Amino acid sequence: MTRTVEELAGAVVAADGAAYERALERHAGLAKPPGSLGRLEDLGARLAAIAGRCPPPIPSSPAVVVAAADHGVHAQGVSDWPQEVTAAMVETVAAGGAAVNAIARTVGARVEVVDVGTLRLGPVPGGVHDERVRSGTRDLAVEPAMTIEECRAAIGAGARVAAELIDGGADLLVTGEVGIGNTTASAALIAAFTGAEPAEVTGKGANLDHERTPHKVEIVRTALARHAADTSVEARGSLGTLASLGGLEHAALVGVMLAGAAARIPVIVDGVITGAAALAAVALCPDVAGYLIAGHTSAEPGGRSLPDRLGEPALLDLRLRLGEGTGALLAVPLVQAAARVLTDMVTLADVTKTA
Amino acid sequence: MTRTVEELAGAVVAADGAAYERALERHAGLAKPPGSLGRLEDLGARLAAIAGRCPPPIPSSPAVVVAAADHGVHAQGVSDWPQEVTAAMVETVAAGGAAVNAIARTVGARVEVVDVGTLRLGPVPGGVHDERVRSGTRDLAVEPAMTIEECRAAIGAGARVAAELIDGGADLLVTGEVGIGNTTASAALIAAFTGAEPAEVTGKGANLDHERTPHKVEIVRTALARHAADTSVEARGSLGTLASLGGLEHAALVGVMLAGAAARIPVIVDGVITGAAALAAVALCPDVAGYLIAGHTSAEPGGRSLPDRLGEPALLDLRLRLGEGTGALLAVPLVQAAARVLTDMVTLADVTKTA
Repeated sequence: MTRTVEELAGAVVAADGAAYERALERHAGLAKPPGSLGRLEDLGARLAAIAGRCPPPIPSSPAVVVAAADHGVHAQGVSDWPQEVTAAMVETVAAGGAAVNAIARTVGARVEVVDVGTLRLGPVPGGVHDERVRSGTRDLAVEPAMTIEECRAAIGAGARVAAELIDGGADLLVTGEVGIGNTTASAALIAAFTGAEPAEVTGKGANLDHERTPHKVEIVRTALARHAADTSVEARGSLGTLASLGGLEHAALVGVMLAGAAARIPVIVDGVITGAAALAAVALCPDVAGYLIAGHTSAEPGGRSLPDRLGEPALLDLRLRLGEGTGALLAVPLVQAAARVLTDMVTLADVTKTA
Repeated sequence: MTRTVEELAGAVVAADGAAYERALERHAGLAKPPGSLGRLEDLGARLAAIAGRCPPPIPSSPAVVVAAADHGVHAQGVSDWPQEVTAAMVETVAAGGAAVNAIARTVGARVEVVDVGTLRLGPVPGGVHDERVRSGTRDLAVEPAMTIEECRAAIGAGARVAAELIDGGADLLVTGEVGIGNTTASAALIAAFTGAEPAEVTGKGANLDHERTPHKVEIVRTALARHAADTSVEARGSLGTLASLGGLEHAALVGVMLAGAAARIPVIVDGVITGAAALAAVALCPDVAGYLIAGHTSAEPGGRSLPDRLGEPALLDLRLRLGEGTGALLAVPLVQAAARVLTDMVTLADVTKTA
């Protein structure tokens, strides 16, 4: 079953503020100095708000969705890497040999890789979800990267994969991506959704150094100007912005986030690309924000945009700039621990009774 | 078997710089942009140096040693909490209801709690290692907290518990502690071993607010002056400093660190108390530093002393200020992931062959 963006957004209810408060109260009575679990306390309360109950369930079946696609803007020379690397990395993830697989094994997470639109000559290989909407986006520097219909199709694909995972027992979603050229599209989305200057949110991405960065900034400026001048009906609204400037994997990840929020499941956001998708998801449906957890601060300059929007820093800052969901996966045990202390710990009253 | 400090220190070899370099080289060839795994790359190389081989083994059996003791300096009014809380928290850890237990379950770590010298009337309860050296230390503001013999006994106790764990298969040690009053002793140790001003390294600890902090700073100054004026043979050297200013749990944790390093096993340090113990361990045996990983930056002002000594920030900064080993345990999956990427990931050459 594929739900539309409107159906997905309509199914999202605001996170439960009363459960959040109950969790903070519970924390104040646990066997420790008040506040001494630091950010785990607020995180646990957010999990209570997400689930609508306190203590919140302890996530035991995390799953990472790695959305992959190619980008027409690659033609502008934004990346050191050939586009073939996207499909090759999809194969590597499917075969279990990428960084995301190693880290997923460490934290006990399932890995699902979704081809929403890589450039490839042959068929999508086994172990990869075939959700191809088109072979790469159009060049966002010269025209909208996607039509609204393509963008909707990619959102629907991501939501469908997430819903299947949730039906199969996944209770914590992690977002990841692969896509040569996608830091340029991400910078354009972040600038569009936050009003930031392109130079503030554009970095070297997967390039070796900053040789191409000034050029990337110019491409982002050009794309924003092109989009701003677009008077078509298609270009209006958040969906129009996502379609015009984003990638198919961004759209698929928006679907993952909407589906997670609709199911009242936490969604851990990874870095700058998934963060750009999250800004789009929140623009489409503000209540989604209550379900998103910033897992890792990307080393990319745009990496702080989502944490800023959510009003709290990412849980981790290990200077990762790889994507794939690697940073978000490393935050999985922190999320599990934040839930578990609310369930497992005895109260201070219990301890002082003994004393 | 109880080894002396000298035997333990003599068994520690320097971490293997060649294995460190081989790990960095290996990272440069893996299927990702060079350097894009950020701090996990250096951490993985440190694990290779610790084990003396590349790729390093992936730690699969972490164990946290929670050392507990009371402090004579409590008489000076440094804590909001009564000393009975130490023994009560030991019982809570043994019963599985403390924060350390909840987080250890999350990361699959075994918890061993060691009473090295709590104040208690009855016998040490089941599930607690009875390694009592004496009932609490003496008041470090007026006299040496421990004799050298007591300090050696506590070091030996910690080393013995750690060695038993290692014999039982533990391949990653995590340090934790419980001890009302131990932030004052920790501040004294940190000031003595780093030369920092007492006011720079003394915080509120488990107290509700900073009402007592200026008094704690004065107590630390008094203790340092008392120790500096001590012309006895006992007071000389690193062991003399640890005995004069530290706690029995600090000494036990020094033993854990020495035993871990001697067995070439990584030891994750938690916060300000375990960090103070680590400074003592490194003073006693500089090569121990190569085996220590700063897991979490304590919210206490002295919490940065060990990361500064190790030359790298702690892996996590979640504003925890609880101790027990909670912050260090949260870093366990990061350590496991850093090792696993070096084992599991394919090379860039493999991927581009496909592309």
